[in-house]
Amino acid sequence: MAGSSFGTLFKITTWGESHGAALGVTVDGCPAGVPLSAEDIQAFLDRRKPGQNAFTTKRNESDTVEILSGVFDGITTGTPISMLVKNEDQHSKDYGNLAETYRPGHADFCYDEKYGTRDYRGGGRSSGRETIGRVAAGAIASKVLKMLGISFTAYTKSIGELSVDYKNFDASEIMKNAFYMPDADCAAKAEKYLELIMSERDSVGSSVECIVRGLPAGIGEPVFDKLDAKLAQAIMSIGAVKAVEIGDGIDVVKKKGSENNDPFTTNGDTVTKLSNHAGGILGGISDGADLLIRASFKPTPSIYREQQTVTKSHENTMLEIKGRHDPIIGPRAVVVVESMCAVTILDLMMCGATSRVDNLKKIYG
Amino acid sequence: MAGSSFGTLFKITTWGESHGAALGVTVDGCPAGVPLSAEDIQAFLDRRKPGQNAFTTKRNESDTVEILSGVFDGITTGTPISMLVKNEDQHSKDYGNLAETYRPGHADFCYDEKYGTRDYRGGGRSSGRETIGRVAAGAIASKVLKMLGISFTAYTKSIGELSVDYKNFDASEIMKNAFYMPDADCAAKAEKYLELIMSERDSVGSSVECIVRGLPAGIGEPVFDKLDAKLAQAIMSIGAVKAVEIGDGIDVVKKKGSENNDPFTTNGDTVTKLSNHAGGILGGISDGADLLIRASFKPTPSIYREQQTVTKSHENTMLEIKGRHDPIIGPRAVVVVESMCAVTILDLMMCGATSRVDNLKKIYG
Amino acid sequence: MAGSSFGTLFKITTWGESHGAALGVTVDGCPAGVPLSAEDIQAFLDRRKPGQNAFTTKRNESDTVEILSGVFDGITTGTPISMLVKNEDQHSKDYGNLAETYRPGHADFCYDEKYGTRDYRGGGRSSGRETIGRVAAGAIASKVLKMLGISFTAYTKSIGELSVDYKNFDASEIMKNAFYMPDADCAAKAEKYLELIMSERDSVGSSVECIVRGLPAGIGEPVFDKLDAKLAQAIMSIGAVKAVEIGDGIDVVKKKGSENNDPFTTNGDTVTKLSNHAGGILGGISDGADLLIRASFKPTPSIYREQQTVTKSHENTMLEIKGRHDPIIGPRAVVVVESMCAVTILDLMMCGATSRVDNLKKIYG
Amino acid sequence: MAGSSFGTLFKITTWGESHGAALGVTVDGCPAGVPLSAEDIQAFLDRRKPGQNAFTTKRNESDTVEILSGVFDGITTGTPISMLVKNEDQHSKDYGNLAETYRPGHADFCYDEKYGTRDYRGGGRSSGRETIGRVAAGAIASKVLKMLGISFTAYTKSIGELSVDYKNFDASEIMKNAFYMPDADCAAKAEKYLELIMSERDSVGSSVECIVRGLPAGIGEPVFDKLDAKLAQAIMSIGAVKAVEIGDGIDVVKKKGSENNDPFTTNGDTVTKLSNHAGGILGGISDGADLLIRASFKPTPSIYREQQTVTKSHENTMLEIKGRHDPIIGPRAVVVVESMCAVTILDLMMCGATSRVDNLKKIYG
Repeated sequence: MAGSSFGTLFKITTWGESHGAALGVTVDGCPAGVPLSAEDIQAFLDRRKPGQNAFTTKRNESDTVEILSGVFDGITTGTPISMLVKNEDQHSKDYGNLAETYRPGHADFCYDEKYGTRDYRGGGRSSGRETIGRVAAGAIASKVLKMLGISFTAYTKSIGELSVDYKNFDASEIMKNAFYMPDADCAAKAEKYLELIMSERDSVGSSVECIVRGLPAGIGEPVFDKLDAKLAQAIMSIGAVKAVEIGDGIDVVKKKGSENNDPFTTNGDTVTKLSNHAGGILGGISDGADLLIRASFKPTPSIYREQQTVTKSHENTMLEIKGRHDPIIGPRAVVVVESMCAVTILDLMMCGATSRVDNLKKIYG
Repeated sequence: MAGSSFGTLFKITTWGESHGAALGVTVDGCPAGVPLSAEDIQAFLDRRKPGQNAFTTKRNESDTVEILSGVFDGITTGTPISMLVKNEDQHSKDYGNLAETYRPGHADFCYDEKYGTRDYRGGGRSSGRETIGRVAAGAIASKVLKMLGISFTAYTKSIGELSVDYKNFDASEIMKNAFYMPDADCAAKAEKYLELIMSERDSVGSSVECIVRGLPAGIGEPVFDKLDAKLAQAIMSIGAVKAVEIGDGIDVVKKKGSENNDPFTTNGDTVTKLSNHAGGILGGISDGADLLIRASFKPTPSIYREQQTVTKSHENTMLEIKGRHDPIIGPRAVVVVESMCAVTILDLMMCGATSRVDNLKKIYG
Repeated sequence: MAGSSFGTLFKITTWGESHGAALGVTVDGCPAGVPLSAEDIQAFLDRRKPGQNAFTTKRNESDTVEILSGVFDGITTGTPISMLVKNEDQHSKDYGNLAETYRPGHADFCYDEKYGTRDYRGGGRSSGRETIGRVAAGAIASKVLKMLGISFTAYTKSIGELSVDYKNFDASEIMKNAFYMPDADCAAKAEKYLELIMSERDSVGSSVECIVRGLPAGIGEPVFDKLDAKLAQAIMSIGAVKAVEIGDGIDVVKKKGSENNDPFTTNGDTVTKLSNHAGGILGGISDGADLLIRASFKPTPSIYREQQTVTKSHENTMLEIKGRHDPIIGPRAVVVVESMCAVTILDLMMCGATSRVDNLKKIYG
Repeated sequence: MAGSSFGTLFKITTWGESHGAALGVTVDGCPAGVPLSAEDIQAFLDRRKPGQNAFTTKRNESDTVEILSGVFDGITTGTPISMLVKNEDQHSKDYGNLAETYRPGHADFCYDEKYGTRDYRGGGRSSGRETIGRVAAGAIASKVLKMLGISFTAYTKSIGELSVDYKNFDASEIMKNAFYMPDADCAAKAEKYLELIMSERDSVGSSVECIVRGLPAGIGEPVFDKLDAKLAQAIMSIGAVKAVEIGDGIDVVKKKGSENNDPFTTNGDTVTKLSNHAGGILGGISDGADLLIRASFKPTPSIYREQQTVTKSHENTMLEIKGRHDPIIGPRAVVVVESMCAVTILDLMMCGATSRVDNLKKIYG
């Protein structure tokens, strides 16, 4: 089946394997008239690029994007935008023993069960490099949303037991530390913590949060394409995500209605809320407050410790993984979460643009 | 936009408002040759029917289903199956004051912002009664999956601070208590707890878990229609859900790779895992282990306490909600969660049936 | 697979069999704010109702529509509009012998090959009654398009050897004769001709044309969802259609470029064309001229003459069809063609409303 | 909106402009286990390559395909197959005057009306080069279908007034003449005829036919995704097509039921038909007979004669087109028609593989 496309009007289709010739994405349905350059895309890709510090894989890729279609004279034309990143630093030999052995926590076994065959080099399609297409598309969606006054703040919230202290929250810190954390103090602790984890040849989990500001009320399509439902699909589709939360998330289980309801208030003109436990979404539709979404990432499954597993020919074996791997997934996934949020929101805004007949008249009247 | 359909090959389209003439669903793409009767559907609907005990709304509905098409001589024909449930006990007058006032925690404000108009009677389309269509469709999907050896165990896991003790887990208890809990002791405590909540004119949150057994490895479509991604959409699209977790869910954040990876093992024939932190899904594809998914439901937003809010004409006001409301959402949503899992899984199994060219030959060769 | 839905934003899902309990359609994604009543729908359904003259089946159905959802206080709310027509005059016994025998020219054999089972009563899902859902949906699409200044003129162009003379074209004649022909003289001849055909216990082919006026330039989505491509799917999906033509249609084969190109001209303000061989579509996008589409309907396959065929158990046999059948399909299909055009065009207009980023700003800015 | 994707399970997404960096396609959902090489694709692309004889544009392109993903060790892996063809011989200067002037018969005006901007070089996205992606995808679909015993015979049927004589039909002739005609005599006449047309600086229309053999009965999804309906969309979406016919096509209008019905017959085992007016499709589902589809192509709109038209700034003007253009579209479109048929049929076969619950058991049981 075809599962590589996402979106209805703003539709992205990604392709490519970790050690193939290239990876890429086609963005179909981008509105015409948006100024767009390779630099816009590159700025996003650079945020997920490997080899930038001690806590990411040493795979050395420039991840340079080429725009092959859909942009003319620096402006989107409304036709599909094809983008491509060539693979460069492929140590495919490192993966030779993985042709026959299933890595625990990875999809190797599942791919073989599903397809009967598998590109075993570096995880193939299930590699984290698959997100290159998502991020390139997200850069475009973000640019369009910015034209509509909508902005994103995404960051690593937790690494193992360490968690950002909201009292220290400083958005300007996010781009200054290796973990994209909005709390310099927490980032410093995380550095020590990660060094310990790495010395133990282990990895650790993490969580990423994304705040969307400026989103108007009314976005989201009842009942299956609700804003939170599509965001949940978008975020859960990122490799290693095991939980998606909106607003107070799982904390709502222990709360009472009188605590959880956000009272509405008005200055006579705008309607706002006195609190935002709902994370900006009610009944699957944006309510005009900040949208808050959180993703829980499992620890990197590739660890250097010896692990029990089985071979393709169904024999028990012990495996020691080689290759190059991050000890943590969250930080490099921050821009992926942001990108998937942007793609989802822009698509739903386009889909919802004709929810009133008066809007149709505005366009065609 | 059209957001009322879910699924690619097994596609459901629901319709209907809380106080309209009827609610229903069209199930398109159900395979031919499945024995099906109204009783099969009714058994599922009865599990979400209101008025069954002290802890559900007193709205008295028989919720009797009619099958209008797609079944001939007791067998599905492959054509769309239209099902309908008439609304009966409508106290629409109770909702008169809601025409002009936005209930906190509800979608009233968002619908008005989106559509410029709204059926305010009982929440209209955003009412919990909307799930009737989901459950009727889920009954069919479950029946098909049962023919393939796949079964579901869904239950309430937590109510406020109370949580099922897995040491007491007894699946046969689930249908015996008002809360669909697999732990008689916990259910007894919940009864007292809910009485207290109700005496406070308040409501409380809850969580629901669903275990899927017998699912073969290989189900789920990389990269956007992964099994967990589509389940996340399906479950998050249920009203009041604020978090979706797979396997260990948010607990993975604090775990190390060496703890979280599930080692593979084999008896030479079948491959299994020594643990199941992943909840049966790796890389978005089922791994043959039990699938575990969990949903967090917020407390019922309709509470009998006075709340601060605004009117449609943007004036501040105080609101006291009347009408009939459950003090908790989870228990009646257990069958909804199970239904959405069934619908999602069957659709992905149908979509993935042709993932190998050898399978195409099996069908057409 | 699910093939009963059509459209992306304005999505219709039809259901129902000829001799089941009812037939219907769910229209999902209709913009909110459209005044709509059962009368609006009924006026369309009455145009395809059987039993109105000597040249249609004597099946006596009122085909009364019920609107079950999506309309509140006479206005569409943006939620799915479910509509239902109950079957009344079912002579299912007439079809008893068809359980075992495949009618030539019908889909009986194909349904059995596909599904392994079949509702044989009156053609089941492949009956012309299936179009009830299309027409009910078309009535809504037409109403919305009318609000945007777009109107339809659909009529029977040819019956067997007889064809409308464009010199006599009078749109006001269309509703005055049994064949919905815009040429009173041709209609009178057709009456005699059909009497002859019926006396021979035979049937005859026909063609239907639809002209769409007021359509703005710019509608249609390259490259697979072009306006003509989606119209072709929509019209070819109507039972018995064997050809779809746009503008000059098959006549373009014999023409030269210098004859077929429509020169553009302008009064300095509006751009128009000096001819319209293209039928209002260039490159799959509307050009602002009248859209012209034509469908060729095969003769009714149900004839009263004895025919050679086979049984379900694969034995040769002779078949004499009983039951009630029209000797010609086109006239009752006029409103079906118009409806499918309306549904297709409205959907593409909604999809294309965000083709420019400036339009997004108009809605959300 | 996103209109560049086609198909549900076997989904193709094309991109690229005539004078951009490259054109390509992503084929998502191709079953795993299919042997595939660049040569398989190139053989198809070479059939539509320009510059091969006196009757095609002199644009000199090698149109060499690169496979960038989805194939490993010569076998499809089930992941998206990305293919790319670089543009080489771009005489973009030839198109300079087209930035401001709308060519009659082309989509220039419509693109500007739709998007407010346009890549005017060589028609941009509306160029015939857009079909490169279709053909590359069609090569893959054809290869899979061949494994299932299904084959295609496509050819030019008519050029202007000249038409193939079925008495001379010789499939082995198709690849031997410049027009892909199965009648050497007709091809010879066409050569003279085209020379005349070219000397008149004019162009002429044509028709293309495709016969599909070996297609099992039962393919096609009622009611909107019927085999003929999806084929009609697929074929009408090819540039310059103005009519699509199945079987006897528009000739059915003048026929009687007793002439048009194909009698069934059986040898006790297989069911066949004594004639095939239906072109292998009944009720939108394949009936096991040869499928016959026909497309009518308008004359190439680019002619070297002076034509009346308007400018972008809405002034009347006269236009003389330069650049390199075929005097006829059909012959080079033969492989495009075949490709779109293959893509459509494979997708519907995959979608229909689970139409019976017994088939699901065959795969998962």
